[in-house]
Amino acid sequence: MQNKENTPTMTRRKAIQCAAALGGIAALGTTTRAHAAENTIKLKANDVVLFQGDSITDAGRDKKDQSSNRIPTLGNGYARMISEQLLGEYSELKLQCYNRGISGHKVPDLQKRWQKDTIDLNPAVLSILIGVNDIWHMLNGNYDGTVEDYENGFTQLLADTKKALPDTTIVICEPFVLRCGAVNDDWFPEFTNRLAAARRVAEKAKVIWVPFQDMFDKAITEETPPSYWAGDGVHPTMAGHALMAKTWMDVTGLG
Amino acid sequence: MQNKENTPTMTRRKAIQCAAALGGIAALGTTTRAHAAENTIKLKANDVVLFQGDSITDAGRDKKDQSSNRIPTLGNGYARMISEQLLGEYSELKLQCYNRGISGHKVPDLQKRWQKDTIDLNPAVLSILIGVNDIWHMLNGNYDGTVEDYENGFTQLLADTKKALPDTTIVICEPFVLRCGAVNDDWFPEFTNRLAAARRVAEKAKVIWVPFQDMFDKAITEETPPSYWAGDGVHPTMAGHALMAKTWMDVTGLG
Repeated sequence: MQNKENTPTMTRRKAIQCAAALGGIAALGTTTRAHAAENTIKLKANDVVLFQGDSITDAGRDKKDQSSNRIPTLGNGYARMISEQLLGEYSELKLQCYNRGISGHKVPDLQKRWQKDTIDLNPAVLSILIGVNDIWHMLNGNYDGTVEDYENGFTQLLADTKKALPDTTIVICEPFVLRCGAVNDDWFPEFTNRLAAARRVAEKAKVIWVPFQDMFDKAITEETPPSYWAGDGVHPTMAGHALMAKTWMDVTGLG
Repeated sequence: MQNKENTPTMTRRKAIQCAAALGGIAALGTTTRAHAAENTIKLKANDVVLFQGDSITDAGRDKKDQSSNRIPTLGNGYARMISEQLLGEYSELKLQCYNRGISGHKVPDLQKRWQKDTIDLNPAVLSILIGVNDIWHMLNGNYDGTVEDYENGFTQLLADTKKALPDTTIVICEPFVLRCGAVNDDWFPEFTNRLAAARRVAEKAKVIWVPFQDMFDKAITEETPPSYWAGDGVHPTMAGHALMAKTWMDVTGLG
């Protein structure tokens, strides 16, 4: 049962993951350990894990079927990939993983359907990725919401959520674009301002922050140009979604 | 950006994964480190990763489209989950991940299509999961292959493969069943004998062995009965496939 004589090597990313996972047992450094302790979600039996957002979360899910824990209803993106891993890893907890992302949605669209699609599901973990349409639809002339509208609306949404669901762990995913496909210079610096707004919202609400833009910026190399991660600059490829799922699992301490 | 005050805890499984991953940097024990060093696959640029087998590998893939790296052509099982993770994690390598599992196939069926479906693809990594139909179809009266036929045919298949593809890393996945659904006492001890045969084949061929039966046996608990992992005892659920993907990634050192 032997294989090649290769010596295992370790990437910096893997070292950080392991240091985070090792937590109280061993550690590569105090800073990393502290970071892991801050962000680690502890799931309980029968917890609901809910993914909310736009088309990136939707990822082609079957919206006629609202059930949890089924591949068609979870779509083909990071939400499904995370759910698969959670159901495999935390089998004893009987988690219920739902996807309620809807293609094209912006913060005001989430607000309209928040009671039915989020509050009523009573999630233990609520992961939200929203913002790219708030600017994209503006650039297309189909929406007139400003950065302030985005920030204020998002802030209000989280305040309402925390009031209705005080025990819910909220995870905010950083909106992102990659400079290819539909994403050209017209998006900037407006998009950068939106990112800053999303970050302020998350910081004020003291929620877990998953730095997707930062992750993609670092993942772009000569061998892997932006289009490897998202062909149109907005919708991730299979590899892009997989990278998002891995980062989400790492940041939440669930990986 | 704070979260709950939970202290991260560590499962035995996670400790083993991390010890394996840490490899030469740090370790929890010499035995674990040695195991990781034996099995670690080192992928290179443009490598082809090929998954071969029966319905468990097939997992509903679109067989009209033979292309790599697409969710429909990779199916909905462990092969697709592993491919997603590889494409996200090893983005710089431009891997090509193919699924050529076909529902209902046994060792003799693989032999018939091996040249076209395996050798011609020249995989750097070839993962094979085969065996459950070799017994299931016999129990159903649709096949008369014995344990010896399985062992001899599988041995010959690997010998032919190693001759045609001397540089390919071969991964043999242990066939498995769970005691529920279609799997009743009639399967035993015949199935246990088949497992022993598969293991002998893998040992003789000195390939990487992924112990799926052992993994599922350990994963069955009061909270997660066999049906959680495979409703009919043969075809894994989403959680079952996810657990397989994780174990495959860990054993090969690619996780």
